[in-house]
Amino acid sequence: MDSAEFRRRGKEMVDFVADYLEGIEGRQVYPDVEPGYLRPLIPTTAPEEPDMFEDIISDVEKIIMPGVTHWHSPFFFAYFPSANSYPALLADILCGAIGCIGFSWGSASEATLVALLAARTKVTRRLQAASPGLTQGAIMEKLVAYSSDQAHSSVERAGLIGGVKLKAIPSDGKFAMRASALQEALERDKAEGLIPFFVVATLGTTSCCSFDNLLEVGPICNKEDMWLHIDAAYAGSSFICPEFRHLLNGVEFADSFNFNPHKWLLVNFDCSAMWVKKRTDLIGAFKLDPLYLKHNHQDSGLITDYRHWQLPLGRRFRSLKMWFVFRMYGVKGLQAYIRKHVRLAHEFERLVQQDPRFEICTEVTLGLVCFRLKGSNRLNEELLERINSAKKIHLVPCHLRDKFVLRFAICARTVESAHVQLAWKHVAQLATSLLATPRD
Amino acid sequence: MDSAEFRRRGKEMVDFVADYLEGIEGRQVYPDVEPGYLRPLIPTTAPEEPDMFEDIISDVEKIIMPGVTHWHSPFFFAYFPSANSYPALLADILCGAIGCIGFSWGSASEATLVALLAARTKVTRRLQAASPGLTQGAIMEKLVAYSSDQAHSSVERAGLIGGVKLKAIPSDGKFAMRASALQEALERDKAEGLIPFFVVATLGTTSCCSFDNLLEVGPICNKEDMWLHIDAAYAGSSFICPEFRHLLNGVEFADSFNFNPHKWLLVNFDCSAMWVKKRTDLIGAFKLDPLYLKHNHQDSGLITDYRHWQLPLGRRFRSLKMWFVFRMYGVKGLQAYIRKHVRLAHEFERLVQQDPRFEICTEVTLGLVCFRLKGSNRLNEELLERINSAKKIHLVPCHLRDKFVLRFAICARTVESAHVQLAWKHVAQLATSLLATPRD
Repeated sequence: MDSAEFRRRGKEMVDFVADYLEGIEGRQVYPDVEPGYLRPLIPTTAPEEPDMFEDIISDVEKIIMPGVTHWHSPFFFAYFPSANSYPALLADILCGAIGCIGFSWGSASEATLVALLAARTKVTRRLQAASPGLTQGAIMEKLVAYSSDQAHSSVERAGLIGGVKLKAIPSDGKFAMRASALQEALERDKAEGLIPFFVVATLGTTSCCSFDNLLEVGPICNKEDMWLHIDAAYAGSSFICPEFRHLLNGVEFADSFNFNPHKWLLVNFDCSAMWVKKRTDLIGAFKLDPLYLKHNHQDSGLITDYRHWQLPLGRRFRSLKMWFVFRMYGVKGLQAYIRKHVRLAHEFERLVQQDPRFEICTEVTLGLVCFRLKGSNRLNEELLERINSAKKIHLVPCHLRDKFVLRFAICARTVESAHVQLAWKHVAQLATSLLATPRD
Repeated sequence: MDSAEFRRRGKEMVDFVADYLEGIEGRQVYPDVEPGYLRPLIPTTAPEEPDMFEDIISDVEKIIMPGVTHWHSPFFFAYFPSANSYPALLADILCGAIGCIGFSWGSASEATLVALLAARTKVTRRLQAASPGLTQGAIMEKLVAYSSDQAHSSVERAGLIGGVKLKAIPSDGKFAMRASALQEALERDKAEGLIPFFVVATLGTTSCCSFDNLLEVGPICNKEDMWLHIDAAYAGSSFICPEFRHLLNGVEFADSFNFNPHKWLLVNFDCSAMWVKKRTDLIGAFKLDPLYLKHNHQDSGLITDYRHWQLPLGRRFRSLKMWFVFRMYGVKGLQAYIRKHVRLAHEFERLVQQDPRFEICTEVTLGLVCFRLKGSNRLNEELLERINSAKKIHLVPCHLRDKFVLRFAICARTVESAHVQLAWKHVAQLATSLLATPRD
C-alpha cells in the first residue's frame, strides 16, 4: 500500500469509524458468540500473497464485529467508563504516524520480567513443597538468574524488580553465551548454596546482534531445572525467512520466547508477542479473580485470559494491527521486507570494508552493522558526536568489551540503497575532516 | 466535535499523516531544540473554552514537530527499527474506535506496582543504611503493605509480584478505610516484628465508588514513614469539578497519586497519569543506563526520563491525545461531561428508589449506582443472568460484604437520559418476570 492508497483507504476508514460510532446504539451491546468462534473463520497461516483491502474491511464486519463487546454503546453500564472521543481518535492517528518511542522501546522488557516472576513463583513452590518450613524470603535470598554480558539492560532491571540476583555470564569472541561459561558460574554458585532458577538467552542482542548458543545453553537449563527465556526482540521477525531459521535452533529447550513485531515486522508500536511452553506456569503465578472480572468461560480452557500474562490488566486490541499487516503484505511481502533490510546492511558493511580507516567490529547477520574508526575510543566518540550534531542521520553507539563502537541499524520502512550510500558518504566525509583536525 | 466534523477532520488528518510520511525524508532526522523548549510554547492550563481544530493542527507543525525525532526517516539508523506501515495505521484507527479493553483495563495497576516497588527499595535502603548487615531477603520477609478490603485486585497482585505481604484493612460502614482499623493492624504487625512500609488508599473503589479517608489515613502514613499511594483510577477525573474537589482532601499526605484519563476524561485507552512527590524515589529504584540509552541531558534535571517511571521501557506518544482533548473540549466541556454522567447516575438512583422491590446499596457520589433486589443473593444472581443474557444492556456485579450487588456505571460518551430510562424499564420488567417465576 503506497501513500496514495493510504489516503484513499484512510478516508474510507474514517467513514467506517464514524458509521460505527453513529450506529453503535443499534448493535447488540454484548456478543452472542462462544469462545473459539473465530478460529474456524480465519486461516491458520498468514496469506502468501497480499489480500485485498476490500476483503479485509468486509471481514471486519463479518467475522470481527460479531465477537466485539461494544464498550462505547450507550447501553454499556459495566465496570467503569472507558474513554472515547473524536479528538482523541484524531490524535491517535497522528500518534501512530509519528510513531516515536519515548526514549527507547521494549515491551520485550515486560516479557522478560513476567517470565522471571513466573519462574520465581515456580521454583518457590517447588522448594516449599519439598521443605514446607522454607519461607519465601529465605528462598528469594538464594535465587540467582543468568544472562549473557551482552543482554539488554531490561534483563538486569527485571532482576532488580523481581528482587533476585542476576549474574552476567561472560560471552565468547562472537559475543555469544556458551555452555562452558554458564556451567562454570552455575557450579560456583551452587557450591555457595545459591539456587540457579532462570536464564535469559538473547537472539540478536541490542549492542551487536549476536546470538547466544541455544543448542549449548538449552540442555543445561533443562537438566538443572532452570527456566529458559529467549529474548528475540529484534531478530525474531527475521525467522519468517527460511534462510534465517537456523538461528533459532535449540528453541525447543525454551520455556518462554518473545519477539517484537513492532520492531521489524511492520506493526507499529506497541506490539510484543510472547509464547510460553506451559501457560499454567504464567497464569498460576499471579492469577486473582475478583467478582467483577469473573466470566463464564474462565475455566473452560477455550479462552486465554491475557490479563494473567502481563502486568497491567488492560490491553488494546493490537492483534487487529497484526491481522491487517499480515493480510496486506502476505508472507512474501514480509519476507521481502526483511531481506531488503539485510541486503542494505551488507551494502553498508561493504562500504565500510572498502575504507581502510574503518573496521567492522562483529559479524553482520541481519540488519545491524557495528563499525568504528581504527583508533582510540576518544576518536570514535568524537566521530559520533560530529555525526549526531550534523543531524543528517541518527546513530547510537555501544560498548563491545572495552571498545566504543558505532551501530548502524537499518530502520525505516522507506530506507533504500540511496539513503545508505548518502549516509556512508556523510560518515566518511566527517571522518576525513576529523582525522585532519590536529589531535592533542 | 460531532461525527460529521470527525469525518471531515479525520480525512484531513489522513492527508496530514500521508504528507508527513511522504515528506519525512526532507525533515532533519534529529531535533535542534533543547529540553524545556516546549514549556513556554504551551499554556500552563487547559483552555476554559474549546480551541479550534485549525489552531491545534497548526500548532502540531509549529510547536510539536520541532521537538520530534523522526523515527521513520530513512536517515534514522539508531537503536533498532520501530515498525510503521500503512495497514497497521489503518488498523489502529479502527482499534481506537472499537476501544474495547481486553477483558478489563487498568494501567492504574502498573502505577500501584511501580509505587510499591519504589517504596520497597526506599525502605530497604533506609534499613540497610541503619544496619549494614541486613540482607534484602531478610528485610523483604518482614515488609508488609496495606489497603482497604475494597481495593482493586491489582493491589493484591502488586504485593504478589513485589514479593511482599499485603494485608486488607476492614473498611467501615461506608466501605472506607479509617484510622482506627489501620492503626490496629499496624500495632499488631509491629508487635510481631513486621515492617509496615506501604499503604494504598483508593478514591472511588471499583466495587462501589467508596472513598478511603485520606485525612485520617494520611497522617498515620507520614508518622510511620510508610509510602502512601492513592489510586483514584476512576474518580480522579471528577476532581476537575470544584464541587467534587473535597473528595481529594488529604491528598497532601500522599507520596504518589494515579488516575486514568482513559476512564472518564475522554482520552481513549491507554492513558494513565501518575504523580510522585519525590521523583528521585522512583528513578532511584530501578535506574539503569546502558550506553545505547544514554543522552546528554539525563542528569540536567531538565527532562523527565519516563522509562524509569514504568516497567516497559517504551512509551507511545500518548500526551498528544490529552492535548487534543483538553483543547477541543476546554475545561468547561470536560466539566460538563463529568456533571452529565453524575446527573444520569442520580437519575437512575431515583428510579431504583421509587421501586419498593429494590434497594440502593451505597451512597451515589459520582457515576456509579450499586443496587439490588431486596432478597437473596441467588435472586440477584438470577436477575443479573437474565439482564446479561438478554444483551440489551451490559452490567457487571460486585460483592459488598456478603451481598451480591449489581453495578450500574454510567459509561458511554453518548449515553443520555433516554438510555438510562430504557435500561431501568428493561431491568424492572426482567425483575417482574423473575419474581413471577415460581421459586424452588
